[in-house]
Amino acid sequence: MSFKQFSSDQDVIDFVQTHTAVFNNSPDLTVTEIGDGNINFVYRVDDGAQSLIVKQALPYIRVIGEAWPLSQDRIRIEAKALKQSEESCPGSVPEVYHYDAASCAIIMADIGQYQSLRQALIERQSLPGVAEELGAYVAKSLFYSSDFYLSSKAKKSIVQDFINPDLCQISEEVYFWDPFCDHERNNVNTPLAARASEWWQDAELKQAVARLKMKFQNQAQVLLHGDLHTGSVFVDPSAEHKVKVIDPEFAFVGPAGFDLGVLIANYLLNLAGQSRAAGEPEERHAYQQVLLSDVNSLWQSLTESFRRLAAEHTQDPCLQSSDIVDAWLSELLTDSLGFAGVEMTRRTLGVAHVADVEQIEDEAARAEAQTMCLDMADLLIKHAGQFSGMPVITAAVGELSFCR
Amino acid sequence: MSFKQFSSDQDVIDFVQTHTAVFNNSPDLTVTEIGDGNINFVYRVDDGAQSLIVKQALPYIRVIGEAWPLSQDRIRIEAKALKQSEESCPGSVPEVYHYDAASCAIIMADIGQYQSLRQALIERQSLPGVAEELGAYVAKSLFYSSDFYLSSKAKKSIVQDFINPDLCQISEEVYFWDPFCDHERNNVNTPLAARASEWWQDAELKQAVARLKMKFQNQAQVLLHGDLHTGSVFVDPSAEHKVKVIDPEFAFVGPAGFDLGVLIANYLLNLAGQSRAAGEPEERHAYQQVLLSDVNSLWQSLTESFRRLAAEHTQDPCLQSSDIVDAWLSELLTDSLGFAGVEMTRRTLGVAHVADVEQIEDEAARAEAQTMCLDMADLLIKHAGQFSGMPVITAAVGELSFCR
Repeated sequence: MSFKQFSSDQDVIDFVQTHTAVFNNSPDLTVTEIGDGNINFVYRVDDGAQSLIVKQALPYIRVIGEAWPLSQDRIRIEAKALKQSEESCPGSVPEVYHYDAASCAIIMADIGQYQSLRQALIERQSLPGVAEELGAYVAKSLFYSSDFYLSSKAKKSIVQDFINPDLCQISEEVYFWDPFCDHERNNVNTPLAARASEWWQDAELKQAVARLKMKFQNQAQVLLHGDLHTGSVFVDPSAEHKVKVIDPEFAFVGPAGFDLGVLIANYLLNLAGQSRAAGEPEERHAYQQVLLSDVNSLWQSLTESFRRLAAEHTQDPCLQSSDIVDAWLSELLTDSLGFAGVEMTRRTLGVAHVADVEQIEDEAARAEAQTMCLDMADLLIKHAGQFSGMPVITAAVGELSFCR
Repeated sequence: MSFKQFSSDQDVIDFVQTHTAVFNNSPDLTVTEIGDGNINFVYRVDDGAQSLIVKQALPYIRVIGEAWPLSQDRIRIEAKALKQSEESCPGSVPEVYHYDAASCAIIMADIGQYQSLRQALIERQSLPGVAEELGAYVAKSLFYSSDFYLSSKAKKSIVQDFINPDLCQISEEVYFWDPFCDHERNNVNTPLAARASEWWQDAELKQAVARLKMKFQNQAQVLLHGDLHTGSVFVDPSAEHKVKVIDPEFAFVGPAGFDLGVLIANYLLNLAGQSRAAGEPEERHAYQQVLLSDVNSLWQSLTESFRRLAAEHTQDPCLQSSDIVDAWLSELLTDSLGFAGVEMTRRTLGVAHVADVEQIEDEAARAEAQTMCLDMADLLIKHAGQFSGMPVITAAVGELSFCR
């Protein structure tokens, strides 16, 4: 069957009514296009009492059009990744009601009552338990797709299922190439030009980033979300499941530190943004302390969960030793710091910035916050292997963001 | 079409005459089954003037029978790997005349005038230029399937094409598990029992091997032969192409150091074997020096070739720096030493030994040579990262094999 884009509200409604029983043939359904992403179409379907989400992938990038084709296989990958997350960490993703290969569309639960973690951090909300639950989510995602848990054949099967050339190529370019050279896609704040120019000529940095790029391309270690910034994480501290992770269309089997690194980087981007954001200095500084404490809690929760899972469920007899788990977690930390530095760089010099920093309206003040981001990125990329643990790291990046 | 095993000489002849024009319908063809391997059937077809080889894969392991099923996909992988080798390093493998998916069979050139490198080393032959050509072969195999050369999408395509679960699982077990525990498949020479028992309880060793096992399972770095011992390498120092590499049915995209490590290990197994083999001590000692010099030459040729290829043909702009190539080669050396230690262990304590050592008839003398193998393996596995270059390593392993 050839692909047809939904071209009317009725198309979306017919699709939902054909494939789910959620609305029980209610005649009063409204359809709202809510996609704020750049790639796909996302519709909320609502009967006043209940709602759900329909996401459809076109054969090109939405905001660019047919000039930038993109494999629709990404929606198969997204559906499969959501199911894997539901299995390894129940409640951590929106429930998938139906995946339709012909329409390249997923029908899933609406998590409208949740807010993006990015927005919550920008608003300096108190988020009790969120960092801990995120740590446990990352731990389970890592463990259940790693060699500690999967059989040799099951591992190769997920590697094959999640080969994702189009979206990996985008990541390889926008993380590891563009922001480390004077690329036309870059978006550099004017007062940052001199610093950017130095950045693009730093041989030590380029060598470390080349190593991380090769890890990204070669190390088929665990199933990754692939785009785990704070805009892919939705939170509701009062809910049974405080965290819902969405949009895993960049999923692939890659290096364990990548998702964690991107997540930490987005906490640190917010940290740097707070230094020059609106509001009272004391309040902003206090929230910076909360962010650093959250990063520590996330890591502590992650390592505790991972160690417990490994002790209880490791299948491979070669890997059943706590020393091996410790070494694995130590490498995870080092790798994730490197990837965090890369994510901070791309969000500062590359094409796609983040609201945490962009909300600073004054160009010079924004450049100061961006300089902090690059200082942190430089520290993390060049010295990732030299920190003895997460508290030492958060203390060091805290220094860089407070003392100005 | 369902699979049919060749059940007579005529079946083999019909297959060859249908798919090749080599024999031009000659009526006088003889068929000889020459498979000395344990897994497949191999036939030589000869008309007195010319000959060729037919290799057929059954859906189980030949020497065990239907009790150990094995995916016939291995013959597709072998045919594809032979073609890749011919492309990246012309003349380094037997020419493939025909691959037949339905019959699970390959028709290829006969390299009957070549001798196995293992046999040549056992006979203490002089092999001028062979180590250098092997080094260049490994360099080209590595480079042309690495990120230095392949586009992101081409790389993912070979990862997918060479996913090889059945044969990788065999390797994961026989290299990284059996010989590091008291496994029923092991074959331990009686005087070696106490040393083996210590070996199986060495926590430092097990941790290092677990790390190597995870590299083997996770690091999709280059297309590997997967079984590059000296019985898979055939040599003729007087031929235009001195080296022909056969039997890549274990091929997969894995860690760059694996093939090189296995190859080095097999030189060192011969080195240890020479210490207690038949013949004059001076002659044996002189050949040990030749072997160490060959390992140095192999590495030097490999690195020179690789650096030249990288300088001329690296596609990825992130990887176009000699510092990055140096770092890559340094990691290659470290990894290969670890894998060499693992191969030496499995050939000493595991199920499949090598003639280089097994030819020593006296049990106690053989145990002495095997002890040298384990001493070298211990050094290589535990201290792989601490050597500054190949000459330091060959000097160190030389010490272990001479001073007895």
